[in-house]
Amino acid sequence: MLILALDTSSIVASVALMDEEKLIGEYIINHEKTHSQKLMPLIEALLTDCEHKLEEVDVIAVAEGPGSFTGLRIGVATAKGLAHGLDKPVVGISTLDGLAFNMPYCEGLICPILDARRNQVYTAVYKWEDGMLNRIFEPVAVSIEALTEQLKQRPEKVVFLGDGVKANEGFLREHLGNRVLLATQSAVMQRASSIAELALQKAKDGKLDSFYGLIPEYLRKSEAERQYEEKMKRCDQSGGANDSIHE
Amino acid sequence: MLILALDTSSIVASVALMDEEKLIGEYIINHEKTHSQKLMPLIEALLTDCEHKLEEVDVIAVAEGPGSFTGLRIGVATAKGLAHGLDKPVVGISTLDGLAFNMPYCEGLICPILDARRNQVYTAVYKWEDGMLNRIFEPVAVSIEALTEQLKQRPEKVVFLGDGVKANEGFLREHLGNRVLLATQSAVMQRASSIAELALQKAKDGKLDSFYGLIPEYLRKSEAERQYEEKMKRCDQSGGANDSIHE
Repeated sequence: MLILALDTSSIVASVALMDEEKLIGEYIINHEKTHSQKLMPLIEALLTDCEHKLEEVDVIAVAEGPGSFTGLRIGVATAKGLAHGLDKPVVGISTLDGLAFNMPYCEGLICPILDARRNQVYTAVYKWEDGMLNRIFEPVAVSIEALTEQLKQRPEKVVFLGDGVKANEGFLREHLGNRVLLATQSAVMQRASSIAELALQKAKDGKLDSFYGLIPEYLRKSEAERQYEEKMKRCDQSGGANDSIHE
Repeated sequence: MLILALDTSSIVASVALMDEEKLIGEYIINHEKTHSQKLMPLIEALLTDCEHKLEEVDVIAVAEGPGSFTGLRIGVATAKGLAHGLDKPVVGISTLDGLAFNMPYCEGLICPILDARRNQVYTAVYKWEDGMLNRIFEPVAVSIEALTEQLKQRPEKVVFLGDGVKANEGFLREHLGNRVLLATQSAVMQRASSIAELALQKAKDGKLDSFYGLIPEYLRKSEAERQYEEKMKRCDQSGGANDSIHE
């Protein structure tokens, strides 16, 4: 089973090709160009360099979120487009699961934190137990203060990774002390190979999605949706006020 | 400090670009083409896609061995050639250290095993202690039986990785039971990003090499050297025999 995996959930663009035997190839670019400029050429280069044709791919895997809204839309739309064109299934994998999988058999807790703006992070907490990666806390958009309070209830060291690490390192060290470990630079950001490997496990279990059904997992409403809803609420209220005047 | 790292110590060709801030890019190909065909185009593609010029690179890092003799010669020769052309320093990093660094904060022991042919593996044993990766056993070419005997003296679980895993998995499970864990497919093989990050640490400590001094670390004599020495020994012996006839 040949899997093509994409991750554009952060500033990093990453594509990987994997089968049951091995990671055949992986290209990672952490550079300013937009994903819409980078992603398709990166997929094409990877396939060409590994001497594979797109038609040989059995499953398209994609980091479904949470993460950058624009990044997720590009990744998921590309995955759906490719799957539709090839008439192949897709597998969506949580960006947070993918990040945790960057740290195989890591001791203690693994805590990916992604910048969610508005003083929040997207996060979840994981632990390897008996060679299996288990979720301890489910994915959520939360303040770093609330996350830290939850982590204080546990005794283990915590490895942090993801694009929210740099902005929050000081706060975490202040409140969790020497329990804080930072991931290596090689593992701190999203990797399509982790998405590919988790998708391979899901695909083997028959957990395949249709390209019709796959949608990004934002975990929270977008800024545009939020503003729209607030505006509608204000309109309703002023509408209500008008009604009372007219009554 | 901009580091360009190469790893061609196994069938995988891998190049990475890293500075103090982040992994800028990494390309990994695990495909049949020879390293001499793959390596230079891969370096050029990575630099172009990350919009960096070769002249901007401050340090060339390379996986110095142990590993495939031909692979190491290509990697080290390319690193020396680039460094000479750019008049920049090089940093050689042990392939085994690089592999162990693929498993950040891993619980228990980490044991890279590389196929050394002639019923041996190149190996070393590592452990993360207080956020630092320490060598427990030094690099050596040894039989899998001897390695297993050494590991039996320790109580920890052992994560195995490298191209020697598949051939030896059965033996390891038979003798070490459920203490055996296999690395994920994403982490099992060499990654230039690990070489880059270890080289960055060395370079920060001022541990830079000249391109004149860098040589591959084979850990063992090559087949050609071994055969040459045996032939010379036979010649000496037959020479000695001839002498005795002439006396």
